[in-house]
Amino acid sequence: MDLPIKPFLTTQSLKPENQETPIKFLTTNIIPDKYFFLRNHFTYPTILAKNFMLPIYGEVIKPYAFDFDTIIKLNQVTINGLLECAGNHRAKFEPRVYGEQWEEGAISQGEWKGIPLRDLLAITGLKANALEVIFEAYDFGNREDMDHNVHYTRSLPLEKALHPDTILAFEYNGKPLSLKHGFPLRLIVPGWYGMASVKWLKKITVINGYYQGPFQMIDYVYYPKGNSHPYPVTTINVNSLIQKPLDYSILDQGLQQIEGIAWSGEGSITKVEVSVDGEKWIIAEISQQFQGSYTWTNWKFQWHAKQKGEYTIYCRAQDSKGRIQPQKPLWNKKGYGYNAIAKVRVKVE
Amino acid sequence: MDLPIKPFLTTQSLKPENQETPIKFLTTNIIPDKYFFLRNHFTYPTILAKNFMLPIYGEVIKPYAFDFDTIIKLNQVTINGLLECAGNHRAKFEPRVYGEQWEEGAISQGEWKGIPLRDLLAITGLKANALEVIFEAYDFGNREDMDHNVHYTRSLPLEKALHPDTILAFEYNGKPLSLKHGFPLRLIVPGWYGMASVKWLKKITVINGYYQGPFQMIDYVYYPKGNSHPYPVTTINVNSLIQKPLDYSILDQGLQQIEGIAWSGEGSITKVEVSVDGEKWIIAEISQQFQGSYTWTNWKFQWHAKQKGEYTIYCRAQDSKGRIQPQKPLWNKKGYGYNAIAKVRVKVE
Repeated sequence: MDLPIKPFLTTQSLKPENQETPIKFLTTNIIPDKYFFLRNHFTYPTILAKNFMLPIYGEVIKPYAFDFDTIIKLNQVTINGLLECAGNHRAKFEPRVYGEQWEEGAISQGEWKGIPLRDLLAITGLKANALEVIFEAYDFGNREDMDHNVHYTRSLPLEKALHPDTILAFEYNGKPLSLKHGFPLRLIVPGWYGMASVKWLKKITVINGYYQGPFQMIDYVYYPKGNSHPYPVTTINVNSLIQKPLDYSILDQGLQQIEGIAWSGEGSITKVEVSVDGEKWIIAEISQQFQGSYTWTNWKFQWHAKQKGEYTIYCRAQDSKGRIQPQKPLWNKKGYGYNAIAKVRVKVE
Repeated sequence: MDLPIKPFLTTQSLKPENQETPIKFLTTNIIPDKYFFLRNHFTYPTILAKNFMLPIYGEVIKPYAFDFDTIIKLNQVTINGLLECAGNHRAKFEPRVYGEQWEEGAISQGEWKGIPLRDLLAITGLKANALEVIFEAYDFGNREDMDHNVHYTRSLPLEKALHPDTILAFEYNGKPLSLKHGFPLRLIVPGWYGMASVKWLKKITVINGYYQGPFQMIDYVYYPKGNSHPYPVTTINVNSLIQKPLDYSILDQGLQQIEGIAWSGEGSITKVEVSVDGEKWIIAEISQQFQGSYTWTNWKFQWHAKQKGEYTIYCRAQDSKGRIQPQKPLWNKKGYGYNAIAKVRVKVE
């Protein structure tokens, strides 16, 4: 009987709503809005779209509040790109790390349409002392370490803010942003972990200094072991994922197709290698790669599973900056940026 | 903004469809059909409901093929009960076990309406040499260890088959069984792991012997370590689950409500104990228990999290047969019946 069978988001928490993309069960490279992972810090904000205005203040020459119609009349660009939560794969750290136990699905990608932020900043102008741009969102709430409600707020260094691919997006996959994913305007910062791509933009402030808010200085900071200095989470590490076979699955003897994705926040994926014995690395076939985009690369590998037994299949990616996935992840107290060599364990029967 | 937020089934596989109930995110004791876990061995069968007939053959006095209308005109009973997959919690075994990596959501419960199987067997009569009753389902497919397609088929010993609560169910929560959950008729065997509650009943055969099919003699058999003899999976072990707080979550100092469920396939839950230090066990409050049903028991526990730090919260249940959750599960090759003391790890900040 052809009953409809579909994967679902995996629920991590409901208050706030955090749900994973069923990344191993989706075969498309454009993730539909309904399967896009959800990562929130607070309850959803209320936004009166009718009177929506985006003010740009601070160290600008002409402060200005843009209405939505003015924004979309500017030069629209489309960015194909992925977003990955900095905590993706957190559940894999050893020793284990507290917080949202993301497995492998805090990653999704699609087509973002918007306006380069720098086109707006060209209108307001920048003062010579401008250093950072702060993005305040409509969502807000309580943090245990603060004595007042805070809005989700992040900053970007001027250089990244002015990058032509840093956009204020208003469409995803050809439709207006959904309410849950930042309607009407969200920042998209390609190559950076998702915390930078602020949803529900409320206000932009250019400052002559370094923003010190809690989502910048307390969260989204790498606190490594030992005496290493903490440092901020920014670009996405080179990483990969084995989508097939599933971890701890039982396979038949014979030809097995191994497949997955690889991605990096800097440069492009240049090589994906697979090992079925933990010693010899063999180059996997790049089955799909979109040059000049910020999307993941699809790879595959034919494995002749000749002998019955238990195997660990490993996969590691390398990017054009020479970065390669490490044997061990950089353990850090809050569990960001996990990118150790991917693996699945299978039994051939 | 009051956007609808709901949990989803957790996808384990799509071919066949296996999905978990989001058991930690549902607060009701009646699980809606759409949230009932799915555990299939094959693709969904096609059933022509119009001409549906259920034949009862074999060691009976008068073999008879019952049509649906005849069945539902018999004496209907309602059973409130849970179903749990024998592989629930499989992902927790150490050493890890291959197969579907069920976490904690291969369990659900609700209201089953149907006809006691013994009322049908009273019509056909039983020969004196009857020993087991075989239930063949409509779903079928290939098994690697067989050279022909097989239907999902299981047997029950006569005593369990004749138990007044062993029913042929045609309704769940007041509605006809859904196509995915066994429409039009499924066996419900309260107290036994879910493999016994055969969906899409096709044929019932009474035999003078012991059924040797692969879902009885190969799968759903405990193969313990060492020299212990294999033995069949039957009744549900005494077990419990901590629904709140979530594993590896970060809590505030102060009063924390710990809550969960406990269940057993034999007798009823008599005690649930919680430990926050791994040494002292304190009796939890039974917040809801339905006597004379096969449903789980709700429990809760108020914890004063006075000191910051990392804690493991343990929970263990005991049933009226004197069974208590063990420190370590009975490891077995196929990973059935996991019921070690439940735990969640939290950090108080």
